[in-house]
Amino acid sequence: MNFARTNTLKLFAIGLALIQGIDSSAQTSTQKTVNIGNTWQALPVKASSPEDNPTTQEKVELGKKLFFDPRLSLTGTVSCNTCHNLMEGGDDGRSTSMGIHGRLGPRNAPTVWNSVFQNSQFWDGRSMSLEDQARGPIVAGPEMGMPAHKNAVDRIAAIPGYQAAFSRVFKSEEPVTIDNAVKAIAAFERTLITPNSAYDRFVHGNKSAMNEKQLQGMKLFDSIGCTECHSGPAFNGWEIGSTTPMFEEFPRNAKNPLVKHFGLNKDLGRFKATKNVADKHHYKVPTLRNITLTAPYLHNGAVPTLAETVRVMSETQLDAQISDTEVSSIVEFLTALEGEFPELTLPRLPSRSGQSVLDDQEPAAKTE
Amino acid sequence: MNFARTNTLKLFAIGLALIQGIDSSAQTSTQKTVNIGNTWQALPVKASSPEDNPTTQEKVELGKKLFFDPRLSLTGTVSCNTCHNLMEGGDDGRSTSMGIHGRLGPRNAPTVWNSVFQNSQFWDGRSMSLEDQARGPIVAGPEMGMPAHKNAVDRIAAIPGYQAAFSRVFKSEEPVTIDNAVKAIAAFERTLITPNSAYDRFVHGNKSAMNEKQLQGMKLFDSIGCTECHSGPAFNGWEIGSTTPMFEEFPRNAKNPLVKHFGLNKDLGRFKATKNVADKHHYKVPTLRNITLTAPYLHNGAVPTLAETVRVMSETQLDAQISDTEVSSIVEFLTALEGEFPELTLPRLPSRSGQSVLDDQEPAAKTE
Repeated sequence: MNFARTNTLKLFAIGLALIQGIDSSAQTSTQKTVNIGNTWQALPVKASSPEDNPTTQEKVELGKKLFFDPRLSLTGTVSCNTCHNLMEGGDDGRSTSMGIHGRLGPRNAPTVWNSVFQNSQFWDGRSMSLEDQARGPIVAGPEMGMPAHKNAVDRIAAIPGYQAAFSRVFKSEEPVTIDNAVKAIAAFERTLITPNSAYDRFVHGNKSAMNEKQLQGMKLFDSIGCTECHSGPAFNGWEIGSTTPMFEEFPRNAKNPLVKHFGLNKDLGRFKATKNVADKHHYKVPTLRNITLTAPYLHNGAVPTLAETVRVMSETQLDAQISDTEVSSIVEFLTALEGEFPELTLPRLPSRSGQSVLDDQEPAAKTE
Repeated sequence: MNFARTNTLKLFAIGLALIQGIDSSAQTSTQKTVNIGNTWQALPVKASSPEDNPTTQEKVELGKKLFFDPRLSLTGTVSCNTCHNLMEGGDDGRSTSMGIHGRLGPRNAPTVWNSVFQNSQFWDGRSMSLEDQARGPIVAGPEMGMPAHKNAVDRIAAIPGYQAAFSRVFKSEEPVTIDNAVKAIAAFERTLITPNSAYDRFVHGNKSAMNEKQLQGMKLFDSIGCTECHSGPAFNGWEIGSTTPMFEEFPRNAKNPLVKHFGLNKDLGRFKATKNVADKHHYKVPTLRNITLTAPYLHNGAVPTLAETVRVMSETQLDAQISDTEVSSIVEFLTALEGEFPELTLPRLPSRSGQSVLDDQEPAAKTE
């Protein structure tokens, strides 16, 4: 039994305790029967940073520039923000992402909002930090498509404004390195938090923040077992202070017809990263924060609507057949997880005066 | 003789008058010998709007959302901002733009900054308004690639937040139309002005705003004839209040070896739009505001650096052979045209809850 399983059982026990708590209540209104207890937690408004990459305002500003800079891609057309659009749900609305030259990636882009509250990154959790995650897409063929990190670093280093910003932030002689670039991007991402959703206000004691149907959905979400995995403040199993990643098998009921219908069993999940047979079809548990804004759904983006996704998850994971009304109440509950998005100013991206930095690799970009 | 030619001669006369003004001065410092006169004008800080599309704050906000919304493209990956990046020079740093599926367009993306001060839009000036311009890229195959405007309108109309915003701004029963969408985009673009450059401050009387080399370059820019076309506050022949477009032949000296070297004669320019033989190789005069930020240069983006571009223009248009030092001083002058960019907040793009609006056309996007 690996940690993921132990953790699951623990969470399951908490879920049971909560249901018992609700059942023992004699109150009639749903609003009053939802027991806040320890399971329902509000989203932190701030995230801590790792010791080797403290968050500073200057670093965040630099990271924001890099996050929005399409010149990090071979063709100069794809930035982090292309697939993780901060103006919307932090994703791209596509089944699977589209990088340079219209190439399609294999999986659905997870939201970058609140990604600091995921204990691992990528669907298969192959990165244990935001810093490590940020390295990947830059050199991924179907994403930003750089031949090597060196090409991205050379691009940035050729822009005087970036040289100056890296120097200020990292205070070393050769400050423009891939390690520093991903540190800055991660520092920026640590600020991408959407607190104060209706759910959060409810948890904080505002009993009218959620409507009756949302509260019914919340109760059902817990009682059918969604909280077994989607627990904690980010609804992804993460607990405040914890750094231990959690992975879950998906789909558990491989024979459910919805699995074939949506092709949910084709991807081997975490196994692709670890080559450990026990990791076949295992995934990190994604946050449900702002889930209404990140359709289509699941690792392959094959499920178009949130309602269908709720049904898929209840049937393939929890063996629970639920009615359309029940699906709809859970969907309604999930709308209560839409948070408040911080107002961000557009960064000014520095330029090399009188000469594009794309020139250096333009021929390579054209011949592909 | 068409208007363009008349206008050219008029501007040329102004240029001559100015040179005489400078020559008649007995002062030794360049700073003092540059005659401000009527030719050197500061950029307006605000633009007027057409009668049928008055600029309002709500319309500008809606236009900003649309400008940044990649869902206006077939694949959901290309927004107006992709090729006209407001975080940088208002262009994409590419020789020619790259739209959906990595398709290449035929010409270099002109900057959107200060485009309100262009009397016509596109390199061939085929649009006489920002509204008309904004219609083009949405349905251009190598840009946003929508099969028809209806597809873009249907996408937007399927998003409740857009429905509400269009209703508020246009107050009609069916407010989401392509006409209203481009009106909003144009209203936003009318706010994209970068005043208060070193040059503007100099023109306004701050004699130390430009350095000695920039002033030498400014003088040379005028004396070799650049101001013949690149005159007025936006350095594109536009005069405040004028709505008459101006087109110029380029390259004039077709036999100059630089023409062949950079393939400058291949594009038939405005002729492609009008089929009028007199329009062959004619183009609108582009603004030189922030020209340092929009490399590579010219209609085909074939000239990588600003220094080379200054040489190309002086040889192919003005028959002027200038030294490296002279080229460099003109480049230095052009750096004085970098304006102040307004701080913009990132818009929040509305979503259809629990279902991506890309779904509707995803199959089409995939089969291409």
